[in-house]
Amino acid sequence: MRDIRTVLIANRGEIALRIARACRLLGLRSVGVHSEADAGLAHLRLVDQRICIGPASAARSYLDAERILRAAALTGADAIHPGYGFLSENADFAEAVERAGLVLVGPPSSVMRMMGDKIAAKQQMRHSGVPCLPGSDDALPDDIAEAMRICDSVGYPLIVKAAGGGGGRGMRVVRRPEDARDAIETAREEAGRAFGNASVYAERFLQHPRHVEIQVLADGVGQAVWLGARDCSVQRRHQKLIEEAPAIGIPPDRIAELGERCARACVQMGYVGAGTFEFLYEDGAFSFIEMNTRLQVEHPVTEMTTGIDIVREQLRIAMGHPLSFGQSDIETRGHAIECRINAEHPETFAPCPGLVRTWRPPGGPGVRVDTHLYDGYTVPPQYDSLVAKLIVHGADRADALARMRAALDEMMVEGITTTAPLHRRLMDAAGFCAGGVSVHYLEALAAEGATP
Amino acid sequence: MRDIRTVLIANRGEIALRIARACRLLGLRSVGVHSEADAGLAHLRLVDQRICIGPASAARSYLDAERILRAAALTGADAIHPGYGFLSENADFAEAVERAGLVLVGPPSSVMRMMGDKIAAKQQMRHSGVPCLPGSDDALPDDIAEAMRICDSVGYPLIVKAAGGGGGRGMRVVRRPEDARDAIETAREEAGRAFGNASVYAERFLQHPRHVEIQVLADGVGQAVWLGARDCSVQRRHQKLIEEAPAIGIPPDRIAELGERCARACVQMGYVGAGTFEFLYEDGAFSFIEMNTRLQVEHPVTEMTTGIDIVREQLRIAMGHPLSFGQSDIETRGHAIECRINAEHPETFAPCPGLVRTWRPPGGPGVRVDTHLYDGYTVPPQYDSLVAKLIVHGADRADALARMRAALDEMMVEGITTTAPLHRRLMDAAGFCAGGVSVHYLEALAAEGATP
Repeated sequence: MRDIRTVLIANRGEIALRIARACRLLGLRSVGVHSEADAGLAHLRLVDQRICIGPASAARSYLDAERILRAAALTGADAIHPGYGFLSENADFAEAVERAGLVLVGPPSSVMRMMGDKIAAKQQMRHSGVPCLPGSDDALPDDIAEAMRICDSVGYPLIVKAAGGGGGRGMRVVRRPEDARDAIETAREEAGRAFGNASVYAERFLQHPRHVEIQVLADGVGQAVWLGARDCSVQRRHQKLIEEAPAIGIPPDRIAELGERCARACVQMGYVGAGTFEFLYEDGAFSFIEMNTRLQVEHPVTEMTTGIDIVREQLRIAMGHPLSFGQSDIETRGHAIECRINAEHPETFAPCPGLVRTWRPPGGPGVRVDTHLYDGYTVPPQYDSLVAKLIVHGADRADALARMRAALDEMMVEGITTTAPLHRRLMDAAGFCAGGVSVHYLEALAAEGATP
Repeated sequence: MRDIRTVLIANRGEIALRIARACRLLGLRSVGVHSEADAGLAHLRLVDQRICIGPASAARSYLDAERILRAAALTGADAIHPGYGFLSENADFAEAVERAGLVLVGPPSSVMRMMGDKIAAKQQMRHSGVPCLPGSDDALPDDIAEAMRICDSVGYPLIVKAAGGGGGRGMRVVRRPEDARDAIETAREEAGRAFGNASVYAERFLQHPRHVEIQVLADGVGQAVWLGARDCSVQRRHQKLIEEAPAIGIPPDRIAELGERCARACVQMGYVGAGTFEFLYEDGAFSFIEMNTRLQVEHPVTEMTTGIDIVREQLRIAMGHPLSFGQSDIETRGHAIECRINAEHPETFAPCPGLVRTWRPPGGPGVRVDTHLYDGYTVPPQYDSLVAKLIVHGADRADALARMRAALDEMMVEGITTTAPLHRRLMDAAGFCAGGVSVHYLEALAAEGATP
């Protein structure tokens, strides 16, 4: 057991509140950090100690590893929970936490670093029998002619991706051999600028894949479990808008086989904590994209279907506890859907920060709202625009859809504009209701000029 | 199928909101009624139409059958959901609803009337094999000597109860034969005054029973199911303060056997809708007390453990749908606890109405809050003091207790005094935490001068 008494929550917004709740549940002392713009965050009322770590600029507060570590030292924290975003997948930060003798709630920095290198991650997956797309297997060589030959052997359409990247940057789709050179060169430039690593690799490009992911928990002492699959195909510019569990229309035995492989990969690579294996799913085949070595925004849909508190398990694992349940203890029930409510214009997606005059969350059976909103809270303009996650659970998908419609209708937020109207329309959109849409669904709708 | 389009919600507070939510979920039009003191009720924002039915006095608004029926006529309602309390178990009201050609969301008035007569109810239960306490079986005869002979044959201690009553009125415990005459006479007087029916009966008095109840749903077309047991032993003056599901420490096969008998009784008596069979449980034996022919305050703990939306099922049944699931489809999972948060002093239980300046409900996985509170709401002094139901669900009872502690700690209500501090202390009280306390637990604690 590692003696953890105080957890510093290196994040803000709804996820900081989520983590503060889990700390209280486990009787752990918690420290909330905040920027000068964030003194009104809801979780600061729940933590045992709060500390301002810098100005509004994220680079000088939530993204500043040194300030976070200094705050941990000042407040006597033994552990740091990074949440998602910010420093949560930064292997240098993870290493600095380890060097400071603190516990990072997450995997070892070495494993985080490996999964951060998409080429190394893919090699690890192949080794563990996790299905991957056919591709260059390694970084494309500097010699452009040789790189183009490798692209030809992968076949078209293909996608050139940054080894160090994510979020769509350093990515180029190549549909014809004659476009390969340009794509490789621009992808390298972009990747170098964005990630400080110009390595790119090529893999087969899928036309209409779904985004399906497997949630895992690994205790670092030899046990790993998978908690079912989520479908997160409704996206806009690689940002998920709606997530569901389970992933409908995929045979449960296929999901189980994939889940087993993911769990096995965790044990083989020495993974610790919660993590997510992301896949594209097309024509009945799964292809690994990347592993997220942290808690995800959409973790509640898995909590709603499995009954497992993922954040509490993260903390328990960080404390050195072995998993208190095995794979056979995990049962999924019903269907869950999450809508990410952003303080953005529902059509232009322009940020809409400001004062929340009135906030009435929906409620009732099967409804959960993870949010830091309250009457009188001001959404600052500096950060991610996620202000609430509306999660519903129903006996099946139709039931969950009905609950989400009712919950969105009931939700009232005055003072700021949110994406809730878009979500509400999507809940009635034929394609979404039929289920199994691809990652291009929302953009295709927008391109058609159809308001979903 | 009965063509129900509009449901009038003949209630207020959290349960009116609960019913409005279920109406929206089913796409039913809803009408909210309110007294002059209740124009700020939260559910009035969710209903399709609202109507003021009278002054603050409940007798001239929520308890006035004629005003309710007039509101239904004015708003074109086809059905009335009475919630709990007020007119929900008033057979005369149910009959008037039927005569007006409307649907009452509940059983037929004839069945409600029979269950309202505790002697008739008990006879029906015996007939259906539902276990009852040994007792007089019929009303005690007017002849006091004969009545006393019957008491002697029941044995002491015994309890004299009003046939038409409930809630502790018209009840007398008799510990010695020489006290029987007085008890019978005062119980008769009290019952006559309180219920307009002086009939009393006698049954064996149990010393330290638990209150255990079975939730049922019956569709009126031959199918009835039971949804597990609840333990509601933590009471103060016959008012439940904490409810749980399942009832711990009782073998599941005993509960199942009892549940089957309750479901069978429903079919035999022509019961329709949701209902609750209340029992005392002592020394391994169940004894029927009464049936509540309505939705109960504590229904959410059953919803949390079974995943079934009881209010939606009530409405579906009222629409003439057969139950969409059978007994074998019902699975219970984990443990749920509900705390009734009242606007009362946590020690004296004196009502504490007033302006709610700040209301921050707790949240996160496994936490549900059914409440009509919001920032700026004023709790009026005229009605029941229940302002929020805090319900948690955990993998087991220890987990649920931990969640309830954390949820009570997180909950913030400013401006009014509530019973939350009492609940918080109870969550740490050795007796309650051990489980299986009797209905006298809370009063015994108070008598000892122990703040629980």
